[in-house]
Amino acid sequence: MKIITRPAAMFKAVMAVKAKGKSVGFVPTMGALHEGHLSLIRRARKDNDIVVVSIFVNPAQFAPGEDLKKYPRPVSQDIALCRKAGVDFIFSPSPKDIYPEGFKTYVSVDGLDRVLCGKSRPGHFRGVATVVAKLLNIVWPDVIYLGQKDAQQAVIIKRMVEDLNFPASIRIMPTVREKSGLALSSRNVYLNIKEKEDALVLSKSLNLASLLIKGGLRDAGRLTKRIRELISKKKSAKVDYIAIVNADDLEPLNKIKGSCLIALAVRIGKTRLIDNVLVKI
Amino acid sequence: MKIITRPAAMFKAVMAVKAKGKSVGFVPTMGALHEGHLSLIRRARKDNDIVVVSIFVNPAQFAPGEDLKKYPRPVSQDIALCRKAGVDFIFSPSPKDIYPEGFKTYVSVDGLDRVLCGKSRPGHFRGVATVVAKLLNIVWPDVIYLGQKDAQQAVIIKRMVEDLNFPASIRIMPTVREKSGLALSSRNVYLNIKEKEDALVLSKSLNLASLLIKGGLRDAGRLTKRIRELISKKKSAKVDYIAIVNADDLEPLNKIKGSCLIALAVRIGKTRLIDNVLVKI
Repeated sequence: MKIITRPAAMFKAVMAVKAKGKSVGFVPTMGALHEGHLSLIRRARKDNDIVVVSIFVNPAQFAPGEDLKKYPRPVSQDIALCRKAGVDFIFSPSPKDIYPEGFKTYVSVDGLDRVLCGKSRPGHFRGVATVVAKLLNIVWPDVIYLGQKDAQQAVIIKRMVEDLNFPASIRIMPTVREKSGLALSSRNVYLNIKEKEDALVLSKSLNLASLLIKGGLRDAGRLTKRIRELISKKKSAKVDYIAIVNADDLEPLNKIKGSCLIALAVRIGKTRLIDNVLVKI
Repeated sequence: MKIITRPAAMFKAVMAVKAKGKSVGFVPTMGALHEGHLSLIRRARKDNDIVVVSIFVNPAQFAPGEDLKKYPRPVSQDIALCRKAGVDFIFSPSPKDIYPEGFKTYVSVDGLDRVLCGKSRPGHFRGVATVVAKLLNIVWPDVIYLGQKDAQQAVIIKRMVEDLNFPASIRIMPTVREKSGLALSSRNVYLNIKEKEDALVLSKSLNLASLLIKGGLRDAGRLTKRIRELISKKKSAKVDYIAIVNADDLEPLNKIKGSCLIALAVRIGKTRLIDNVLVKI
Protein backbone atom coordinates (compact mmCIF):
# COMPACT_ATOMS: atom_id res chain seq x y z
CA MET A 1 0.00 0.00 0.00
CA LYS A 2 1.27 3.41 -0.96
CA ILE A 3 0.38 6.63 0.85
CA ILE A 4 0.39 9.62 -1.47
CA THR A 5 -0.04 13.24 -0.43
CA ARG A 6 0.48 15.25 -3.62
CA PRO A 7 -2.29 15.48 -6.24
CA ALA A 8 0.21 15.31 -9.11
CA ALA A 9 1.81 12.14 -7.70
CA MET A 10 -1.60 10.53 -7.18
CA PHE A 11 -2.62 11.37 -10.74
CA LYS A 12 0.61 9.93 -12.09
CA ALA A 13 0.23 6.72 -10.09
CA VAL A 14 -3.34 6.24 -11.31
CA MET A 15 -2.38 6.97 -14.91
CA ALA A 16 0.28 4.27 -14.74
CA VAL A 17 -2.32 1.82 -13.44
CA LYS A 18 -4.90 2.78 -16.06
CA ALA A 19 -2.33 2.52 -18.85
CA LYS A 20 -2.20 -1.19 -18.02
CA GLY A 21 -5.95 -1.40 -18.51
CA LYS A 22 -6.66 -1.87 -14.82
CA SER A 23 -9.88 -0.69 -13.21
CA VAL A 24 -9.83 1.74 -10.30
CA GLY A 25 -12.35 1.74 -7.45
CA PHE A 26 -12.42 4.85 -5.31
CA VAL A 27 -13.68 5.44 -1.77
CA PRO A 28 -13.59 9.14 -0.81
CA THR A 29 -13.54 9.61 2.98
CA MET A 30 -12.72 12.11 5.71
CA GLY A 31 -10.92 9.36 7.62
CA ALA A 32 -11.97 8.20 11.10
CA LEU A 33 -12.82 5.01 9.28
CA HIS A 34 -15.46 2.65 10.64
CA GLU A 35 -17.28 -0.43 9.39
CA GLY A 36 -19.37 1.77 7.09
CA HIS A 37 -16.29 2.91 5.21
CA LEU A 38 -14.86 -0.59 5.35
CA SER A 39 -17.94 -2.00 3.67
CA LEU A 40 -17.31 0.40 0.78
CA ILE A 41 -13.63 -0.51 0.64
CA ARG A 42 -14.40 -4.24 0.65
CA ARG A 43 -16.86 -3.80 -2.19
CA ALA A 44 -14.33 -1.68 -4.14
CA ARG A 45 -11.71 -4.39 -3.49
CA LYS A 46 -14.05 -7.06 -4.83
CA ASP A 47 -15.02 -5.11 -7.97
CA ASN A 48 -11.73 -3.55 -9.10
CA ASP A 49 -8.05 -4.19 -9.82
CA ILE A 50 -6.94 -1.20 -7.82
CA VAL A 51 -8.51 0.47 -4.78
CA VAL A 52 -7.85 4.11 -3.88
CA VAL A 53 -9.08 5.56 -0.57
CA SER A 54 -8.84 9.31 -0.05
CA ILE A 55 -8.57 10.60 3.50
CA PHE A 56 -9.16 14.34 3.59
CA VAL A 57 -11.07 16.36 6.17
CA ASN A 58 -12.39 18.86 3.65
CA PRO A 59 -12.46 22.40 5.09
CA ALA A 60 -14.77 23.59 2.29
CA GLN A 61 -17.64 21.45 3.55
CA PHE A 62 -17.56 22.76 7.12
CA ALA A 63 -19.43 25.99 7.86
CA PRO A 64 -17.92 28.43 10.35
CA GLY A 65 -18.67 27.17 13.86
CA GLU A 66 -18.89 23.53 12.78
CA ASP A 67 -16.56 20.80 14.00
CA LEU A 68 -13.70 21.11 11.47
CA LYS A 69 -11.03 21.43 14.14
CA LYS A 70 -12.26 18.70 16.46
CA TYR A 71 -13.27 16.27 13.69
CA PRO A 72 -11.51 12.99 14.62
CA ARG A 73 -8.27 12.24 12.76
CA PRO A 74 -7.02 8.84 13.98
CA VAL A 75 -4.37 8.68 11.25
CA SER A 76 -2.41 5.56 12.15
CA GLN A 77 -5.58 3.60 12.88
CA ASP A 78 -6.98 4.60 9.47
CA ILE A 79 -3.79 3.53 7.74
CA ALA A 80 -3.83 0.17 9.52
CA LEU A 81 -7.48 -0.42 8.57
CA CYS A 82 -6.78 0.42 4.91
CA ARG A 83 -3.76 -1.86 4.83
CA LYS A 84 -5.74 -4.71 6.35
CA ALA A 85 -8.56 -4.18 3.83
CA GLY A 86 -6.17 -4.49 0.90
CA VAL A 87 -6.21 -0.86 -0.23
CA ASP A 88 -3.59 -0.07 -2.90
CA PHE A 89 -3.33 3.70 -2.48
CA ILE A 90 -4.25 6.09 0.30
CA PHE A 91 -4.51 9.63 -1.05
CA SER A 92 -4.11 11.94 1.91
CA PRO A 93 -3.43 15.52 0.80
CA SER A 94 -3.09 18.57 3.01
CA PRO A 95 -5.66 21.37 2.75
CA LYS A 96 -3.02 23.47 0.96
CA ASP A 97 -2.61 20.78 -1.71
CA ILE A 98 -6.34 20.86 -2.40
CA TYR A 99 -7.02 24.57 -1.89
CA PRO A 100 -3.82 26.40 -2.77
CA GLU A 101 -3.60 30.17 -2.53
CA GLY A 102 -5.81 31.86 -5.09
CA PHE A 103 -8.28 28.97 -5.28
CA LYS A 104 -11.63 30.31 -6.55
CA THR A 105 -13.58 27.55 -8.31
CA TYR A 106 -16.63 25.87 -6.81
CA VAL A 107 -19.12 23.32 -8.06
CA SER A 108 -22.76 23.73 -7.02
CA VAL A 109 -25.69 21.42 -7.59
CA ASP A 110 -28.50 23.96 -7.65
CA GLY A 111 -31.56 23.21 -5.55
CA LEU A 112 -30.39 19.84 -4.26
CA ASP A 113 -27.89 21.65 -2.04
CA ARG A 114 -30.47 23.86 -0.33
CA VAL A 115 -32.83 21.21 1.05
CA LEU A 116 -32.51 18.78 4.00
CA CYS A 117 -29.00 19.17 5.46
CA GLY A 118 -28.35 22.06 3.07
CA LYS A 119 -30.76 24.26 5.02
CA SER A 120 -28.82 24.15 8.26
CA ARG A 121 -25.41 23.65 6.66
CA PRO A 122 -25.11 26.42 4.02
CA GLY A 123 -22.20 25.85 1.66
CA HIS A 124 -21.73 22.27 2.88
CA PHE A 125 -22.70 20.51 -0.35
CA ARG A 126 -20.89 23.06 -2.48
CA GLY A 127 -17.80 22.04 -0.54
CA VAL A 128 -18.61 18.36 -1.05
CA ALA A 129 -19.26 18.70 -4.79
CA THR A 130 -16.12 20.78 -5.28
CA VAL A 131 -13.78 18.39 -3.52
CA VAL A 132 -15.30 15.36 -5.23
CA ALA A 133 -14.92 17.03 -8.66
CA LYS A 134 -11.26 17.61 -7.83
CA LEU A 135 -10.76 14.08 -6.53
CA LEU A 136 -12.34 12.66 -9.69
CA ASN A 137 -9.79 14.54 -11.79
CA ILE A 138 -6.95 13.36 -9.57
CA VAL A 139 -7.96 9.71 -9.10
CA TRP A 140 -9.88 9.03 -12.36
CA PRO A 141 -11.87 6.15 -10.89
CA ASP A 142 -14.06 3.78 -12.84
CA VAL A 143 -16.38 3.45 -9.86
CA ILE A 144 -16.94 5.67 -6.82
CA TYR A 145 -18.30 3.99 -3.68
CA LEU A 146 -20.57 5.99 -1.41
CA GLY A 147 -22.67 5.18 1.63
CA GLN A 148 -26.45 5.41 1.81
CA LYS A 149 -26.00 6.93 5.28
CA ASP A 150 -25.13 10.22 3.55
CA ALA A 151 -28.13 9.98 1.24
CA GLN A 152 -28.23 13.60 0.13
CA GLN A 153 -24.50 13.61 -0.54
CA ALA A 154 -24.91 10.53 -2.72
CA VAL A 155 -27.78 12.12 -4.69
CA ILE A 156 -25.76 15.30 -5.21
CA ILE A 157 -22.57 13.54 -6.28
CA LYS A 158 -24.54 11.32 -8.65
CA ARG A 159 -26.17 14.39 -10.19
CA MET A 160 -22.82 16.19 -10.49
CA VAL A 161 -21.06 13.22 -12.08
CA GLU A 162 -23.83 12.93 -14.64
CA ASP A 163 -24.20 16.69 -15.27
CA LEU A 164 -20.49 17.34 -15.72
CA ASN A 165 -19.90 14.16 -17.77
CA PHE A 166 -17.37 12.65 -15.40
CA PRO A 167 -16.65 9.18 -16.79
CA ALA A 168 -17.25 7.34 -13.53
CA SER A 169 -20.10 5.25 -12.24
CA ILE A 170 -21.43 5.38 -8.71
CA ARG A 171 -22.24 2.55 -6.37
CA ILE A 172 -24.15 3.29 -3.20
CA MET A 173 -23.81 0.79 -0.36
CA PRO A 174 -26.26 0.25 2.50
CA THR A 175 -25.87 2.00 5.85
CA VAL A 176 -23.93 -0.08 8.36
CA ARG A 177 -25.39 -0.08 11.88
CA GLU A 178 -24.43 -1.16 15.36
CA LYS A 179 -26.53 -4.06 16.72
CA SER A 180 -28.53 -1.44 18.58
CA GLY A 181 -29.59 0.10 15.26
CA LEU A 182 -27.38 3.21 15.58
CA ALA A 183 -26.00 4.14 12.16
CA LEU A 184 -22.20 4.19 12.18
CA SER A 185 -20.76 7.69 11.95
CA SER A 186 -17.38 9.19 12.63
CA ARG A 187 -19.25 11.72 14.76
CA ASN A 188 -20.58 9.04 17.15
CA VAL A 189 -17.34 9.45 19.12
CA TYR A 190 -18.68 12.82 20.30
CA LEU A 191 -21.55 11.07 22.18
CA ASN A 192 -21.37 10.15 25.86
CA ILE A 193 -22.99 6.91 27.04
CA LYS A 194 -26.35 8.50 27.82
CA GLU A 195 -26.40 10.38 24.49
CA LYS A 196 -25.48 7.22 22.60
CA GLU A 197 -28.57 5.56 24.01
CA ASP A 198 -30.73 8.58 23.24
CA ALA A 199 -29.32 8.56 19.70
CA LEU A 200 -31.13 5.27 19.09
CA VAL A 201 -34.25 7.37 18.65
CA LEU A 202 -33.15 8.14 15.08
CA SER A 203 -33.13 4.55 13.84
CA LYS A 204 -36.13 3.68 16.02
CA SER A 205 -38.21 6.45 14.51
CA LEU A 206 -37.22 5.35 11.01
CA ASN A 207 -38.19 1.79 11.90
CA LEU A 208 -41.52 3.07 13.16
CA ALA A 209 -42.05 4.92 9.88
CA SER A 210 -41.24 1.79 7.87
CA LEU A 211 -43.68 -0.24 9.96
CA LEU A 212 -46.43 2.36 9.59
CA ILE A 213 -45.90 2.39 5.81
CA LYS A 214 -46.03 -1.41 5.74
CA GLY A 215 -49.26 -1.10 7.70
CA GLY A 216 -50.70 1.12 4.96
CA LEU A 217 -50.02 4.68 6.10
CA ARG A 218 -49.22 6.86 3.07
CA ASP A 219 -49.67 10.40 4.32
CA ALA A 220 -46.27 12.09 4.68
CA GLY A 221 -47.59 14.68 7.13
CA ARG A 222 -48.92 12.06 9.51
CA LEU A 223 -45.74 10.00 9.24
CA THR A 224 -43.65 13.07 10.00
CA LYS A 225 -45.82 13.78 13.02
CA ARG A 226 -45.38 10.25 14.36
CA ILE A 227 -41.62 10.45 13.90
CA ARG A 228 -41.49 13.83 15.61
CA GLU A 229 -43.55 12.55 18.55
CA LEU A 230 -41.21 9.64 19.10
CA ILE A 231 -38.09 11.79 18.93
CA SER A 232 -39.53 14.44 21.26
CA LYS A 233 -39.68 11.85 24.02
CA LYS A 234 -35.92 12.17 24.38
CA LYS A 235 -35.04 15.36 26.21
CA SER A 236 -31.52 15.54 24.73
CA ALA A 237 -32.90 15.28 21.18
CA LYS A 238 -33.65 18.31 19.03
CA VAL A 239 -35.01 17.76 15.54
CA ASP A 240 -33.21 19.66 12.78
CA TYR A 241 -35.42 18.22 10.06
CA ILE A 242 -37.62 15.27 9.23
CA ALA A 243 -37.99 14.96 5.45
CA ILE A 244 -40.00 12.63 3.27
CA VAL A 245 -38.80 13.13 -0.29
CA ASN A 246 -38.40 11.49 -3.67
CA ALA A 247 -35.18 9.48 -3.43
CA ASP A 248 -33.84 10.66 -6.81
CA ASP A 249 -34.46 14.42 -6.82
CA LEU A 250 -35.17 15.08 -3.11
CA GLU A 251 -38.50 16.76 -3.96
CA PRO A 252 -40.90 16.69 -0.98
CA LEU A 253 -43.67 14.08 -1.14
CA ASN A 254 -47.15 14.42 0.27
CA LYS A 255 -47.90 10.74 -0.24
CA ILE A 256 -45.51 7.81 0.07
CA LYS A 257 -45.10 6.64 -3.50
CA GLY A 258 -42.35 5.21 -5.71
CA SER A 259 -38.81 5.45 -4.44
CA CYS A 260 -39.02 7.42 -1.24
CA LEU A 261 -36.37 8.65 1.17
CA ILE A 262 -37.19 9.35 4.80
CA ALA A 263 -34.32 11.36 6.20
CA LEU A 264 -33.64 12.89 9.60
CA ALA A 265 -31.16 15.19 11.21
CA VAL A 266 -31.34 15.34 14.99
CA ARG A 267 -29.11 17.01 17.51
CA ILE A 268 -28.33 14.78 20.47
CA GLY A 269 -26.81 17.20 22.95
CA LYS A 270 -24.27 19.11 20.88
CA THR A 271 -23.84 16.40 18.26
CA ARG A 272 -25.78 16.56 15.02
CA LEU A 273 -26.59 13.08 13.70
CA ILE A 274 -28.28 12.04 10.47
CA ASP A 275 -29.98 8.83 9.42
CA ASN A 276 -32.37 7.73 6.70
CA VAL A 277 -34.29 4.85 5.26
CA LEU A 278 -35.19 4.12 1.64
CA VAL A 279 -38.74 2.88 1.08
CA LYS A 280 -39.90 1.53 -2.26
CA ILE A 281 -43.58 1.08 -2.97
CA MET B 1 -13.18 14.59 -40.57
CA LYS B 2 -15.94 13.21 -38.38
CA ILE B 3 -18.87 15.22 -37.08
CA ILE B 4 -20.11 13.92 -33.74
CA THR B 5 -23.19 15.14 -31.91
CA ARG B 6 -23.51 12.83 -28.89
CA PRO B 7 -21.27 13.32 -25.84
CA ALA B 8 -20.91 9.55 -25.33
CA ALA B 9 -19.81 9.05 -28.95
CA MET B 10 -17.30 11.90 -28.70
CA PHE B 11 -15.89 10.47 -25.49
CA LYS B 12 -15.55 7.04 -27.06
CA ALA B 13 -13.82 8.44 -30.14
CA VAL B 14 -11.34 10.38 -28.04
CA MET B 15 -10.66 7.40 -25.79
CA ALA B 16 -9.80 5.31 -28.85
CA VAL B 17 -7.39 8.01 -29.98
CA LYS B 18 -5.80 8.38 -26.55
CA ALA B 19 -5.42 4.63 -26.17
CA LYS B 20 -3.01 4.84 -29.10
CA GLY B 21 -0.97 7.42 -27.20
CA LYS B 22 -2.00 10.27 -29.47
CA SER B 23 -2.25 13.84 -28.25
CA VAL B 24 -5.50 15.79 -28.52
CA GLY B 25 -5.71 19.54 -29.15
CA PHE B 26 -9.08 21.12 -28.46
CA VAL B 27 -10.61 24.37 -29.71
CA PRO B 28 -13.95 25.12 -28.02
CA THR B 29 -16.07 27.51 -30.10
CA MET B 30 -19.62 28.73 -30.59
CA GLY B 31 -19.18 28.41 -34.35
CA ALA B 32 -19.43 31.34 -36.77
CA LEU B 33 -15.74 30.65 -37.25
CA HIS B 34 -13.41 33.43 -38.37
CA GLU B 35 -9.65 33.85 -38.71
CA GLY B 36 -9.40 34.16 -34.92
CA HIS B 37 -10.74 30.65 -34.45
CA LEU B 38 -8.72 29.42 -37.41
CA SER B 39 -5.50 30.68 -35.82
CA LEU B 40 -6.32 28.49 -32.80
CA ILE B 41 -7.14 25.52 -34.99
CA ARG B 42 -3.93 25.88 -36.98
CA ARG B 43 -1.89 26.01 -33.81
CA ALA B 44 -3.73 22.96 -32.44
CA ARG B 45 -3.09 21.19 -35.76
CA LYS B 46 0.62 21.99 -35.54
CA ASP B 47 0.98 20.87 -31.91
CA ASN B 48 -1.14 17.70 -31.73
CA ASP B 49 -1.90 14.37 -33.39
CA ILE B 50 -5.63 14.96 -33.26
CA VAL B 51 -7.64 18.18 -33.36
CA VAL B 52 -11.15 18.46 -31.93
CA VAL B 53 -13.26 21.57 -32.50
CA SER B 54 -16.49 21.94 -30.57
CA ILE B 55 -19.25 24.05 -32.09
CA PHE B 56 -21.92 24.78 -29.52
CA VAL B 57 -23.85 27.99 -28.97
CA ASN B 58 -24.04 27.58 -25.21
CA PRO B 59 -27.42 28.75 -23.84
CA ALA B 60 -26.03 28.84 -20.27
CA GLN B 61 -23.71 31.73 -21.08
CA PHE B 62 -26.41 34.01 -22.51
CA ALA B 63 -28.44 36.09 -20.08
CA PRO B 64 -32.15 36.63 -20.79
CA GLY B 65 -32.44 39.37 -23.42
CA GLU B 66 -29.05 38.64 -24.94
CA ASP B 67 -28.51 37.46 -28.51
CA LEU B 68 -28.82 33.67 -28.06
CA LYS B 69 -31.47 33.33 -30.76
CA LYS B 70 -29.90 35.57 -33.35
CA TYR B 71 -26.31 34.47 -32.70
CA PRO B 72 -24.96 33.50 -36.16
CA ARG B 73 -24.93 29.78 -36.96
CA PRO B 74 -23.40 29.37 -40.45
CA VAL B 75 -23.17 25.59 -40.06
CA SER B 76 -22.03 24.47 -43.50
CA GLN B 77 -19.47 27.25 -43.74
CA ASP B 78 -18.07 26.25 -40.33
CA ILE B 79 -17.83 22.63 -41.39
CA ALA B 80 -16.03 23.58 -44.61
CA LEU B 81 -13.56 25.77 -42.71
CA CYS B 82 -12.82 22.97 -40.23
CA ARG B 83 -12.32 20.46 -43.00
CA LYS B 84 -9.97 22.77 -44.83
CA ALA B 85 -8.00 23.41 -41.64
CA GLY B 86 -7.45 19.68 -41.11
CA VAL B 87 -9.71 19.21 -38.09
CA ASP B 88 -10.24 15.54 -37.15
CA PHE B 89 -13.45 15.82 -35.14
CA ILE B 90 -16.18 18.43 -34.94
CA PHE B 91 -18.18 17.98 -31.74
CA SER B 92 -21.49 19.68 -32.29
CA PRO B 93 -24.05 18.65 -29.67
CA SER B 94 -27.57 19.96 -29.28
CA PRO B 95 -28.50 21.96 -26.15
CA LYS B 96 -30.44 18.91 -24.94
CA ASP B 97 -27.33 16.74 -25.16
CA ILE B 98 -25.42 19.19 -22.96
CA TYR B 99 -28.23 20.26 -20.63
CA PRO B 100 -30.65 17.33 -20.39
CA GLU B 101 -33.77 17.56 -18.26
CA GLY B 102 -32.93 17.74 -14.58
CA PHE B 103 -29.53 19.35 -15.15
CA LYS B 104 -28.51 21.19 -11.97
CA THR B 105 -24.72 21.44 -11.71
CA TYR B 106 -22.79 24.65 -12.28
CA VAL B 107 -19.15 25.64 -11.97
CA SER B 108 -18.36 29.13 -10.69
CA VAL B 109 -15.04 30.90 -10.44
CA ASP B 110 -15.76 33.20 -7.51
CA GLY B 111 -14.82 36.82 -7.88
CA LEU B 112 -13.32 36.55 -11.36
CA ASP B 113 -16.83 36.13 -12.75
CA ARG B 114 -18.20 39.33 -11.24
CA VAL B 115 -15.78 41.88 -12.65
CA LEU B 116 -15.40 43.36 -16.18
CA CYS B 117 -17.89 41.59 -18.47
CA GLY B 118 -19.30 39.73 -15.47
CA LYS B 119 -20.85 42.96 -14.17
CA SER B 120 -23.13 43.49 -17.15
CA ARG B 121 -23.48 39.80 -18.04
CA PRO B 122 -24.54 38.08 -14.80
CA GLY B 123 -24.26 34.30 -15.04
CA HIS B 124 -22.25 34.52 -18.25
CA PHE B 125 -18.99 33.12 -16.90
CA ARG B 126 -20.76 30.51 -14.81
CA GLY B 127 -22.20 29.29 -18.10
CA VAL B 128 -18.78 29.38 -19.72
CA ALA B 129 -17.02 27.55 -16.86
CA THR B 130 -19.77 24.92 -16.70
CA VAL B 131 -19.77 24.09 -20.40
CA VAL B 132 -15.98 23.99 -20.53
CA ALA B 133 -15.85 21.64 -17.52
CA LYS B 134 -18.29 19.37 -19.36
CA LEU B 135 -16.35 19.61 -22.63
CA LEU B 136 -13.11 18.75 -20.83
CA ASN B 137 -14.71 15.56 -19.51
CA ILE B 138 -16.07 14.69 -22.95
CA VAL B 139 -13.01 15.56 -25.09
CA TRP B 140 -10.15 14.95 -22.60
CA PRO B 141 -7.75 17.25 -24.42
CA ASP B 142 -4.05 17.56 -23.72
CA VAL B 143 -4.17 21.23 -24.70
CA ILE B 144 -7.05 23.72 -24.92
CA TYR B 145 -6.60 26.65 -27.31
CA LEU B 146 -8.22 29.96 -26.41
CA GLY B 147 -8.07 33.46 -27.86
CA GLN B 148 -6.68 36.51 -26.06
CA LYS B 149 -9.66 38.44 -27.48
CA ASP B 150 -11.79 36.86 -24.72
CA ALA B 151 -9.22 37.69 -22.07
CA GLN B 152 -11.46 37.30 -19.04
CA GLN B 153 -12.77 33.99 -20.32
CA ALA B 154 -9.21 32.75 -20.72
CA VAL B 155 -8.28 33.81 -17.17
CA ILE B 156 -11.38 32.11 -15.76
CA ILE B 157 -10.92 28.86 -17.68
CA LYS B 158 -7.25 28.75 -16.71
CA ARG B 159 -8.21 29.22 -13.04
CA MET B 160 -10.91 26.54 -13.27
CA VAL B 161 -8.65 24.01 -14.96
CA GLU B 162 -6.03 24.51 -12.28
CA ASP B 163 -8.48 24.63 -9.35
CA LEU B 164 -10.41 21.50 -10.37
CA ASN B 165 -7.26 19.57 -11.36
CA PHE B 166 -8.28 19.02 -14.95
CA PRO B 167 -5.27 17.38 -16.62
CA ALA B 168 -5.11 19.80 -19.54
CA SER B 169 -2.84 22.70 -20.36
CA ILE B 170 -4.00 25.98 -21.86
CA ARG B 171 -2.52 27.91 -24.74
CA ILE B 172 -3.73 31.43 -25.36
CA MET B 173 -3.26 32.83 -28.86
CA PRO B 174 -3.10 36.51 -29.85
CA THR B 175 -6.17 38.42 -31.00
CA VAL B 176 -6.56 38.39 -34.78
CA ARG B 177 -7.55 41.75 -36.30
CA GLU B 178 -8.73 43.15 -39.58
CA LYS B 179 -6.22 45.46 -41.29
CA SER B 180 -8.23 48.34 -39.89
CA GLY B 181 -7.43 47.13 -36.37
CA LEU B 182 -10.92 45.82 -35.61
CA ALA B 183 -10.68 42.63 -33.52
CA LEU B 184 -12.37 39.72 -35.26
CA SER B 185 -15.60 38.66 -33.57
CA SER B 186 -18.56 36.57 -34.61
CA ARG B 187 -20.67 39.51 -33.48
CA ASN B 188 -19.12 41.88 -36.05
CA VAL B 189 -21.75 40.65 -38.52
CA TYR B 190 -24.32 42.62 -36.50
CA LEU B 191 -22.59 45.92 -37.45
CA ASN B 192 -23.66 48.06 -40.41
CA ILE B 193 -20.99 49.88 -42.44
CA LYS B 194 -21.12 53.04 -40.35
CA GLU B 195 -21.02 51.10 -37.09
CA LYS B 196 -18.11 49.03 -38.31
CA GLU B 197 -16.14 52.19 -38.82
CA ASP B 198 -17.18 53.55 -35.43
CA ALA B 199 -16.12 50.22 -33.90
CA LEU B 200 -12.51 51.04 -34.75
CA VAL B 201 -12.58 53.30 -31.72
CA LEU B 202 -12.01 50.23 -29.51
CA SER B 203 -8.67 49.23 -31.02
CA LYS B 204 -7.69 52.86 -31.53
CA SER B 205 -8.24 53.69 -27.88
CA LEU B 206 -6.21 50.63 -26.85
CA ASN B 207 -3.44 51.73 -29.21
CA LEU B 208 -3.57 55.18 -27.65
CA ALA B 209 -3.27 53.62 -24.19
CA SER B 210 -0.26 51.56 -25.28
CA LEU B 211 1.42 54.64 -26.73
CA LEU B 212 0.77 56.68 -23.60
CA ILE B 213 2.25 53.89 -21.48
CA LYS B 214 5.29 53.72 -23.75
CA GLY B 215 5.54 57.47 -23.30
CA GLY B 216 5.74 56.99 -19.53
CA LEU B 217 2.15 57.41 -18.31
CA ARG B 218 1.51 54.99 -15.43
CA ASP B 219 -1.59 56.34 -13.75
CA ALA B 220 -4.55 54.04 -14.50
CA GLY B 221 -7.12 56.73 -13.77
CA ARG B 222 -5.61 59.11 -16.30
CA LEU B 223 -5.27 56.36 -18.89
CA THR B 224 -8.91 55.42 -18.39
CA LYS B 225 -9.91 59.05 -18.81
CA ARG B 226 -7.99 59.34 -22.10
CA ILE B 227 -9.57 56.15 -23.41
CA ARG B 228 -13.03 57.34 -22.40
CA GLU B 229 -12.51 60.71 -24.08
CA LEU B 230 -11.53 59.08 -27.35
CA ILE B 231 -14.47 56.67 -27.32
CA SER B 232 -16.95 59.41 -26.42
CA LYS B 233 -16.17 61.15 -29.72
CA LYS B 234 -18.24 58.48 -31.46
CA LYS B 235 -21.93 59.12 -31.00
CA SER B 236 -22.91 55.50 -31.62
CA ALA B 237 -20.46 54.29 -28.91
CA LYS B 238 -21.47 53.72 -25.33
CA VAL B 239 -18.85 52.51 -22.86
CA ASP B 240 -19.82 49.48 -20.78
CA TYR B 241 -16.48 49.40 -18.97
CA ILE B 242 -12.87 50.40 -19.30
CA ALA B 243 -10.73 48.29 -16.98
CA ILE B 244 -7.05 48.31 -16.16
CA VAL B 245 -6.31 45.17 -14.18
CA ASN B 246 -3.65 42.64 -13.29
CA ALA B 247 -3.61 40.19 -16.19
CA ASP B 248 -3.55 37.09 -13.97
CA ASP B 249 -6.16 37.78 -11.29
CA LEU B 250 -8.08 40.70 -12.86
CA GLU B 251 -7.55 42.84 -9.75
CA PRO B 252 -7.82 46.59 -10.52
CA LEU B 253 -4.53 48.46 -10.80
CA ASN B 254 -3.94 52.08 -9.86
CA LYS B 255 -0.54 52.13 -11.51
CA ILE B 256 0.55 50.29 -14.66
CA LYS B 257 2.94 47.65 -13.38
CA GLY B 258 3.86 44.05 -14.16
CA SER B 259 1.55 42.13 -16.44
CA CYS B 260 -1.35 44.44 -17.10
CA LEU B 261 -4.58 43.96 -19.04
CA ILE B 262 -6.43 46.94 -20.48
CA ALA B 263 -9.89 45.71 -21.41
CA LEU B 264 -12.94 47.42 -22.89
CA ALA B 265 -16.53 46.66 -23.59
CA VAL B 266 -18.32 49.20 -25.75
CA ARG B 267 -21.75 49.18 -27.30
CA ILE B 268 -21.73 50.31 -30.92
CA GLY B 269 -25.40 50.84 -31.63
CA LYS B 270 -27.01 47.67 -30.30
CA THR B 271 -23.89 45.53 -30.59
CA ARG B 272 -21.68 44.98 -27.56
CA LEU B 273 -18.03 44.59 -28.55
CA ILE B 274 -14.99 43.79 -26.43
CA ASP B 275 -11.31 44.24 -27.01
CA ASN B 276 -8.15 44.32 -24.91
CA VAL B 277 -4.43 44.72 -24.93
CA LEU B 278 -1.80 43.09 -22.73
CA VAL B 279 0.95 45.40 -21.52
CA LYS B 280 4.04 44.11 -19.74
CA ILE B 281 6.32 46.49 -17.91
